[in-house]
Amino acid sequence: MAVELRYDTDVSETVAATERFIADYVLPLEDEFVGDMTAAGGDDLRVEMQGKAKAAGIFAPHAPVEYGGLGYNMSDRAPVFEAGGRSLFGPIALNIGAPDEGNVHMLSHIASEGQKQQFLAPLAAGDVRSAFAMTEPAPGAGADPSALRSSATRTDGGWKINGHKWFITGADGAGFYIIMARTSGEPGSRGGATMFLAPAPDPAIEIVRHVGTIDKAGIGGHCEIRFHDLFVPDENVLGEVDEGFRYAQVRLGPARMTHVMRWLGVAVRAHEVAVDYVARREAFGTLLGDLGMIQQMVAENVIDLAASRALLVKACHELDLGHHAGDETSIAKTFAAEAYSRVLDRSIQMCGGTGVTDDLPLARLQQELRPFRIYDGPSEVHRWALAKRAVGKAKKKIHAENERAGTAR
Amino acid sequence: MAVELRYDTDVSETVAATERFIADYVLPLEDEFVGDMTAAGGDDLRVEMQGKAKAAGIFAPHAPVEYGGLGYNMSDRAPVFEAGGRSLFGPIALNIGAPDEGNVHMLSHIASEGQKQQFLAPLAAGDVRSAFAMTEPAPGAGADPSALRSSATRTDGGWKINGHKWFITGADGAGFYIIMARTSGEPGSRGGATMFLAPAPDPAIEIVRHVGTIDKAGIGGHCEIRFHDLFVPDENVLGEVDEGFRYAQVRLGPARMTHVMRWLGVAVRAHEVAVDYVARREAFGTLLGDLGMIQQMVAENVIDLAASRALLVKACHELDLGHHAGDETSIAKTFAAEAYSRVLDRSIQMCGGTGVTDDLPLARLQQELRPFRIYDGPSEVHRWALAKRAVGKAKKKIHAENERAGTAR
Amino acid sequence: MAVELRYDTDVSETVAATERFIADYVLPLEDEFVGDMTAAGGDDLRVEMQGKAKAAGIFAPHAPVEYGGLGYNMSDRAPVFEAGGRSLFGPIALNIGAPDEGNVHMLSHIASEGQKQQFLAPLAAGDVRSAFAMTEPAPGAGADPSALRSSATRTDGGWKINGHKWFITGADGAGFYIIMARTSGEPGSRGGATMFLAPAPDPAIEIVRHVGTIDKAGIGGHCEIRFHDLFVPDENVLGEVDEGFRYAQVRLGPARMTHVMRWLGVAVRAHEVAVDYVARREAFGTLLGDLGMIQQMVAENVIDLAASRALLVKACHELDLGHHAGDETSIAKTFAAEAYSRVLDRSIQMCGGTGVTDDLPLARLQQELRPFRIYDGPSEVHRWALAKRAVGKAKKKIHAENERAGTAR
Amino acid sequence: MAVELRYDTDVSETVAATERFIADYVLPLEDEFVGDMTAAGGDDLRVEMQGKAKAAGIFAPHAPVEYGGLGYNMSDRAPVFEAGGRSLFGPIALNIGAPDEGNVHMLSHIASEGQKQQFLAPLAAGDVRSAFAMTEPAPGAGADPSALRSSATRTDGGWKINGHKWFITGADGAGFYIIMARTSGEPGSRGGATMFLAPAPDPAIEIVRHVGTIDKAGIGGHCEIRFHDLFVPDENVLGEVDEGFRYAQVRLGPARMTHVMRWLGVAVRAHEVAVDYVARREAFGTLLGDLGMIQQMVAENVIDLAASRALLVKACHELDLGHHAGDETSIAKTFAAEAYSRVLDRSIQMCGGTGVTDDLPLARLQQELRPFRIYDGPSEVHRWALAKRAVGKAKKKIHAENERAGTAR
Repeated sequence: MAVELRYDTDVSETVAATERFIADYVLPLEDEFVGDMTAAGGDDLRVEMQGKAKAAGIFAPHAPVEYGGLGYNMSDRAPVFEAGGRSLFGPIALNIGAPDEGNVHMLSHIASEGQKQQFLAPLAAGDVRSAFAMTEPAPGAGADPSALRSSATRTDGGWKINGHKWFITGADGAGFYIIMARTSGEPGSRGGATMFLAPAPDPAIEIVRHVGTIDKAGIGGHCEIRFHDLFVPDENVLGEVDEGFRYAQVRLGPARMTHVMRWLGVAVRAHEVAVDYVARREAFGTLLGDLGMIQQMVAENVIDLAASRALLVKACHELDLGHHAGDETSIAKTFAAEAYSRVLDRSIQMCGGTGVTDDLPLARLQQELRPFRIYDGPSEVHRWALAKRAVGKAKKKIHAENERAGTAR
Repeated sequence: MAVELRYDTDVSETVAATERFIADYVLPLEDEFVGDMTAAGGDDLRVEMQGKAKAAGIFAPHAPVEYGGLGYNMSDRAPVFEAGGRSLFGPIALNIGAPDEGNVHMLSHIASEGQKQQFLAPLAAGDVRSAFAMTEPAPGAGADPSALRSSATRTDGGWKINGHKWFITGADGAGFYIIMARTSGEPGSRGGATMFLAPAPDPAIEIVRHVGTIDKAGIGGHCEIRFHDLFVPDENVLGEVDEGFRYAQVRLGPARMTHVMRWLGVAVRAHEVAVDYVARREAFGTLLGDLGMIQQMVAENVIDLAASRALLVKACHELDLGHHAGDETSIAKTFAAEAYSRVLDRSIQMCGGTGVTDDLPLARLQQELRPFRIYDGPSEVHRWALAKRAVGKAKKKIHAENERAGTAR
Repeated sequence: MAVELRYDTDVSETVAATERFIADYVLPLEDEFVGDMTAAGGDDLRVEMQGKAKAAGIFAPHAPVEYGGLGYNMSDRAPVFEAGGRSLFGPIALNIGAPDEGNVHMLSHIASEGQKQQFLAPLAAGDVRSAFAMTEPAPGAGADPSALRSSATRTDGGWKINGHKWFITGADGAGFYIIMARTSGEPGSRGGATMFLAPAPDPAIEIVRHVGTIDKAGIGGHCEIRFHDLFVPDENVLGEVDEGFRYAQVRLGPARMTHVMRWLGVAVRAHEVAVDYVARREAFGTLLGDLGMIQQMVAENVIDLAASRALLVKACHELDLGHHAGDETSIAKTFAAEAYSRVLDRSIQMCGGTGVTDDLPLARLQQELRPFRIYDGPSEVHRWALAKRAVGKAKKKIHAENERAGTAR
Repeated sequence: MAVELRYDTDVSETVAATERFIADYVLPLEDEFVGDMTAAGGDDLRVEMQGKAKAAGIFAPHAPVEYGGLGYNMSDRAPVFEAGGRSLFGPIALNIGAPDEGNVHMLSHIASEGQKQQFLAPLAAGDVRSAFAMTEPAPGAGADPSALRSSATRTDGGWKINGHKWFITGADGAGFYIIMARTSGEPGSRGGATMFLAPAPDPAIEIVRHVGTIDKAGIGGHCEIRFHDLFVPDENVLGEVDEGFRYAQVRLGPARMTHVMRWLGVAVRAHEVAVDYVARREAFGTLLGDLGMIQQMVAENVIDLAASRALLVKACHELDLGHHAGDETSIAKTFAAEAYSRVLDRSIQMCGGTGVTDDLPLARLQQELRPFRIYDGPSEVHRWALAKRAVGKAKKKIHAENERAGTAR
């Protein structure tokens, strides 16, 4: 039999340890910041939390063992990241937050040995933070990567980068950037992007502003950035020139899934908070949790969470098999982002007036979660990609039939 | 022909004047407070805006003419309140925000001549603000009014009120309170509430805290309050003793509808912001607004807004006919609150990353709107009431059939 | 005050008489055909029912008074058609079924005096049935009218029509057809359709088959038709040559609304059947109708029905004012068609196993209703039209701003 | 690593063989019955098809090897049943239709050796059909099993059964029944049901009628049955006396999942039919499948199918581990039944007018599918069970906390 959905003992132990760590240490910390979650307490708190996570043996489960991590594959990351995701501060504590976690993943796969020493090692250890500079304000690269406008031009011994980016998560305070810039072709054409590694801060990197997003708890903000003739030496080209779009895919599929894992923790937490609430409170002479309309919301949460997790398991397994898993990751991301939104919304509704107050974490978790249906590809773009592949397959089949029938169409 | 849905000329002119007032004066003001909407700029700004609204001839359209208002009925209030509601600051400027607007409505209907002079006149004129103290923290009166615990006991020449309230909108800084307290019966029994008028501040009224809700733009907060032996003289009993629950209904139906009017303005504004955005921005070589999935969202917004407005028109007409309109107001409130939520959510989604930033007002409008599905009766309570009436009617019919058939069931 | 939603006394009396007629006479008749609704009992039963409807003074409320009808406008038709629509046989009995009702409407507006005598008079009286031959199988005119392929070419004293149609409701047994054929331009170009009146049967009109649709209860089927050199004399051109697309709009808006009226009757009936069921039956020791999840379905039905009716009232009023009402009719049709589907589905679900049996009419009503989201324009086409207008308005405004700013875009 | 979602080679081969069998042999057969699917062609066709399935080596994959099956566990059944389920006739051909498949499963687990020889052997071989007589008309056992009214009373050497059942699938023509009857306790009390094996036909078993359900393609109907003093000897008691409710659970979880498997085949087929349609047809100058609103429906189908399959895989795995899997099977059944309904509905909508005709199988598949949200427990009952467990867990935790805190609640 080949269907097997159990985790090995060491993974289960890491999950349990992470749950304890979050419940006993991180959530109480998070509570201290109710009212202002901005930057999740900042870098000092980050360093403190990461020290504790190292001591607990749960730090950086995704990082290669030789860089201090647990070397877990996607399937095994899932339950650990979910456990860590329960607190908005958890991913920072475990060093599994965006964008660092995705950058660790990508550097592990693409970076040269020297680059690994210089960039991956300190990042995996939590000694620095990082940024991934791809998204651009309109009319540049957003949901449509081929619109990329930032450019790198050849210069002596390296490249000169100019461009305008925004939504660069964690940029403020990052120790280095991975920058996506066009090295050939024109905006609108696909071919010709390259990834560059650039230590920061650097006078050629201007942090224009923190974009004022509805989610606040990320460290280092979502920044608007300008590159002014930023010089990058040849040895800091990540992978091959002009292969940037392909590498972005290497990063994006798994990064999408780790978002799904972390936000699953948030959604589960919200559900539990709400169930606990309705299991305590009465109205109309009955426990709220025994009323049919509340039960309906509870059950729909249960179903949404189970389906999200099942799709996540499937997509991770495909990625672990080395597949591109474009469909599986788009499906899991789109479904989960929407399901979590529903879960958060129902959880608030279940708690009535209390649900929209700071007395419970629900309203602020909802704010943090809202952008997930847009970040990493809006649901509409994923749906479009899924449909294109499905309809494209049908077109191909019809074309083949027509060919066989000798009828040119 | 008796179906007629046009507004008289004077109403249409008030609407147009309100639209200009909001666009030219209030929205630019609101923009100055991006980043911190708390209390909508405070009482000084309120007074300034109300002066301008008076000058524009659009102040207090709902207040009786003899108290400086326009004397509009519910049907005519609808388009004016919608126009005023486009800005979060608009209702304050026009003196049509909660809870003052509902209190003006109720005092006009129930207060004695003396009470009108003392309380209604300054409230209608914007000289003071007011509060309506009904909701209590669990296990008190929330969605279930009969759970009322605050009590008023007889004392020499009046009443002594003790109790614990929360979500008392506008309480901080209010010039007087309308307080709902139990004067007979026990929590869980329906009969026996009375409304009291109490000037504020008063040492017997303790403002425990501003409850930290997700909506920030109300003036005077949503407060937690304790009454400590608050004395209210007999002449400040509003209406009859023990008739409070009935009066609450007088207030609640119309108040529900004016919420629906004001939030309709917000939803229309959000929709227009998003449509403007997709009519400017391109992706994948096409204008966003020409893409099918975006068109679907645009159309669903259009439908949701039209249906909300149509249900509002119907409910207002029923109220103007003097009907209780329990079904009609529950239907309009429930549908609209959920429809507006969908409209806001889609509008954000249509704008992609920009939608979750402060660069557009959408994300903060969504936050302000979220509680509307809970305040003034959660959707679930309205659905329950609607179903109870529908099933109750069927039960009665079945019972009558059985009676006729001579069969005891 | 100009908002008025009451019906005049004579209309209310017609509604009440129609309700009695349906309950006492038509529904028992319908019950005799459970198991095979095909053609609603056929033309003999139609004639019999129409006789009774004439006697009851409720026949053809939409037809001009001079042709034996009640001369009601759209607003007044609404409640009568709803009452008649409760039974699948009701519209046939009242002579207000598709396509005859829409044809009466169009002929009243467009036909010449002679055409009225020859075609409208017997149709309004129920002496003949009619067909409206517009829709074509792919790649002809379907949701996209401009794809029209059937052609009429000039010949001596008239026109010769060739073409292929389907979904021609009521064609089998119709006394005449109104045929839409291209008189200029090419498929894909909008201009150049003409409407023709053609007595039937005629050897040049071939009824290829009854298309096997999921709805069965229409009289005369949904037919596939071929015209083989069908000759139509000049005097049978309806209105002006090449004005067919414009006339189609005259017919389509109101026809859409009368569909919404009739199906509202079906949806209300289904809801009442289901509420009656849950008000009688117990499970888990409780009356079904007192269970929260059932109450939720009841309430959602109530809301969906109210919103559909409110949008219908609005659209009818706009049509009665002589407006094109493209938005209002698209909104009402799209919302109602989807709302009724939800109502039917919930009603079945409320009745559990019994809901999917012939013991209740719900499952067969659902089958009859399903196509309504596709007929008269699929929801997607209406949404597209709504979005196009909304985004188009924004584009125009932006263009005007740009013009004012002196910037060519 | 313990997450593994691949099927062993023999299973994959069985799946492929089943797909070929259905495409090449069964679907063309099904097409011959368009217009009247009743009883799927009857028993003669069943025998013929089963002969072919045996020859193809795909017969009875769920039956024990010693009884001629393939002995597959739940996980391995899933893809085979899905492949077989694509045609309404497929499950009959493979002998994996309800109720026989579930009865084989239950007899394999509970029957005595002698009972296996007498009942399981011929059933597994397709020599007879069977019925499972549990559901009763109101006020008997429906969604609430404890309402069981049919009774078995002790008599010489056995039991005498009286009772009234309905929705007894396949009863007409069944070679034996498994009958659930009360052997102790009262309707409304849980304890005390027993399962009995009864050869059929038998004069004491009256088939009152075929209940006229919207789904037609089952063989042997959904029958209303009365037992009149039916004698069952002791050796035909299935398992232990008074353990019937427990055994029902043994049957119901897996039976629910095999429904999910088979209907998944139907949903996938419908989706493919619709995608093929939109990949061929143009409107408004574009291929339907390239229009955004159609792409949205395609993508939502893809997501719904993937999530249904993922939840199914999870539930089957739990069952294979020997767990009760009450949550997992309720989640998978509820989600899938609703998701398939959405898939069918969207598939019809994608095909426009053609979608509601017999020219495509969609409308009739939708009819067959509709009851699945009710049969085997309506969605509402599953949601209620899920919520009860979730809230119950929270209550228990709160109680434990209170205990620890020394506070009696």
